[in-house]
Amino acid sequence: MKLTAVIMAGGKGERFWPKSRTSCPKQFLSLTSDGETMIQKTVRRLGALVAPEDVYIVTNAAYLGLIHEQLPDVPAENVIAEPCARNTAPCIGLAAGIIQKKYGDAVMFVLPSDHLIRSEDMYTDTLRRAAEAAEAGENLVTLGITPTYPETGYGYIKYVRGSGRSGVYDVERFVEKPDLPTAKGYLKSGGYLWNSGMFIWKATTILSNIRQHMPLLYEGLLPIAAAYGTADFSDVLNEHFPDLPAESIDFGIMEKASHIHTIPGNFGWDDVGSWLALQRINETDSEGNMLSGDVVSVDSKNCTICAGSRMIAVLGLEDVVIVDTPDAVLVCDKNSTQDIKKVLAELRAQGRVELL
Amino acid sequence: MKLTAVIMAGGKGERFWPKSRTSCPKQFLSLTSDGETMIQKTVRRLGALVAPEDVYIVTNAAYLGLIHEQLPDVPAENVIAEPCARNTAPCIGLAAGIIQKKYGDAVMFVLPSDHLIRSEDMYTDTLRRAAEAAEAGENLVTLGITPTYPETGYGYIKYVRGSGRSGVYDVERFVEKPDLPTAKGYLKSGGYLWNSGMFIWKATTILSNIRQHMPLLYEGLLPIAAAYGTADFSDVLNEHFPDLPAESIDFGIMEKASHIHTIPGNFGWDDVGSWLALQRINETDSEGNMLSGDVVSVDSKNCTICAGSRMIAVLGLEDVVIVDTPDAVLVCDKNSTQDIKKVLAELRAQGRVELL
Repeated sequence: MKLTAVIMAGGKGERFWPKSRTSCPKQFLSLTSDGETMIQKTVRRLGALVAPEDVYIVTNAAYLGLIHEQLPDVPAENVIAEPCARNTAPCIGLAAGIIQKKYGDAVMFVLPSDHLIRSEDMYTDTLRRAAEAAEAGENLVTLGITPTYPETGYGYIKYVRGSGRSGVYDVERFVEKPDLPTAKGYLKSGGYLWNSGMFIWKATTILSNIRQHMPLLYEGLLPIAAAYGTADFSDVLNEHFPDLPAESIDFGIMEKASHIHTIPGNFGWDDVGSWLALQRINETDSEGNMLSGDVVSVDSKNCTICAGSRMIAVLGLEDVVIVDTPDAVLVCDKNSTQDIKKVLAELRAQGRVELL
Repeated sequence: MKLTAVIMAGGKGERFWPKSRTSCPKQFLSLTSDGETMIQKTVRRLGALVAPEDVYIVTNAAYLGLIHEQLPDVPAENVIAEPCARNTAPCIGLAAGIIQKKYGDAVMFVLPSDHLIRSEDMYTDTLRRAAEAAEAGENLVTLGITPTYPETGYGYIKYVRGSGRSGVYDVERFVEKPDLPTAKGYLKSGGYLWNSGMFIWKATTILSNIRQHMPLLYEGLLPIAAAYGTADFSDVLNEHFPDLPAESIDFGIMEKASHIHTIPGNFGWDDVGSWLALQRINETDSEGNMLSGDVVSVDSKNCTICAGSRMIAVLGLEDVVIVDTPDAVLVCDKNSTQDIKKVLAELRAQGRVELL
């Protein structure tokens, strides 16, 4: 069966301010030394399974230019511009409707646009096995990540041990972000996986599940999908999409549907969720500093420093994140990286939209 | 008797890097909100006692342009450009020789160019009394500062209690920078003053002391002072000045001479010795932050932040100093401000003279 990919690229990436801006969020930035942007990596590493003409990108209208620039091989008609954000269920449902209309049916790899994969071969192999499981029936497959530490920032998947048919396990339930003791218990038990937000299913399978569990969404999607490929599509999209129920695919479908399966992945996944991730995904010096660009570091350790056009000298610092851009510099304690939204709120309150 | 001032303005101000550069050191910067530079303040607050035409500035040839620009009322012939740094004794001796040649004799206020005075009226009054004491005989008068806390970064002056004639005390001895327990003892005893490096004496008095205690310096000064006012002056200066013994006036004269007196000053003196001083001399917010320029501060306290052309956002920081300039940013823990020289050493090692 045809293999397709749906890449969700509408995120704002606020936790990567000041590099990530409303005009150019995280997925369009390169956060690694190779210069490749996050979304370019996402499309390239699908290469062995999905050709660019079968890659669909759902994003915000503001980013059409960036996508065309960074992914010239993805056809313009495969890029769907949401007039507004409606969470993941409408985004995925619309893509499923379009794929069903175009191919009759096809396997969909539903993927975030801003994650990192260390072992791309193992990733490809895992996706291939997931596609086989999705094709084999009315299965909804989610990729779980074997936890390597008690992360409290992710949701977890409890799977049924011993249910594995060629590495595909039944999902018992999804659990919300745990506190640290709970996360440690999950890690110890071995029965839990990180929820990576990567899904694999047939377009017809997810659509029948939406019809059953989210009928209002299903009804709303029909006219939009029907208009795909016609001159009216963007008018119909802009007219009806805002009325779709804003719901996540996890809450709207995965936590309600049956035939939910997971494949534990060990391909070095990282969601690159905050500036702290740069120390995990890039080289660090002997003092544990992640230094990028023109930096002079003296008596400093475990700092993450991204220099821009000017030299940054650090002296006697520990656990500090510094990010320099042409019009704004962030200096942040590592324990506060999740609070960058407070800075953005202050900038909004000051009406300084040029810095957001 | 004529009152004159000799302002020593050859310092490099390295502890104020990156704002202070070899091309424009601390004394030519404004570190207060009023925009007035340190050396402009030094000359202006002398106004009640010394007219600009009686102000002499000893500096490095590289700074002649800055001085003319910042102090247009000081005559060009009053600005003496040392061909090289030879510590304070040659600098002061040369000025004394020039003043003696020009006025026969005069009182000299010998002052650093980069200190701050909060109460300028009390300062003027103290200088006036010092001048009277200097005129009254062969007295070498130094201004002591009544300590307000056990500072370990200054030298101290032990004065003879009860020796005060109209607030002028005999000096028992000068002591080097103490450790904290010693400094606390000095503060408690009440018999010690901070050594401010401000001296008052007649030109003839300091010259006779130099003749007695530093005969080599005296001999070396004669031809240079003799050439002052002639077309040959700068040639003679450049030829002979480098041969003068590099010595401080404190070690060369003050610690050896007799008739050493001190006047305790309470005029809010601050030597502005490091970035930490900015919190003492400028307004701070309710969290103890000294913020200058375009700064957004969230969950941060006791930080000193000088923004340049770009916005600086700080998040969750404590006791950090940030100084932004067009080509370099310093981010420094407050306990490390005395180690800025390590950064400069690294830049020198990298041959990055443009940043020094």
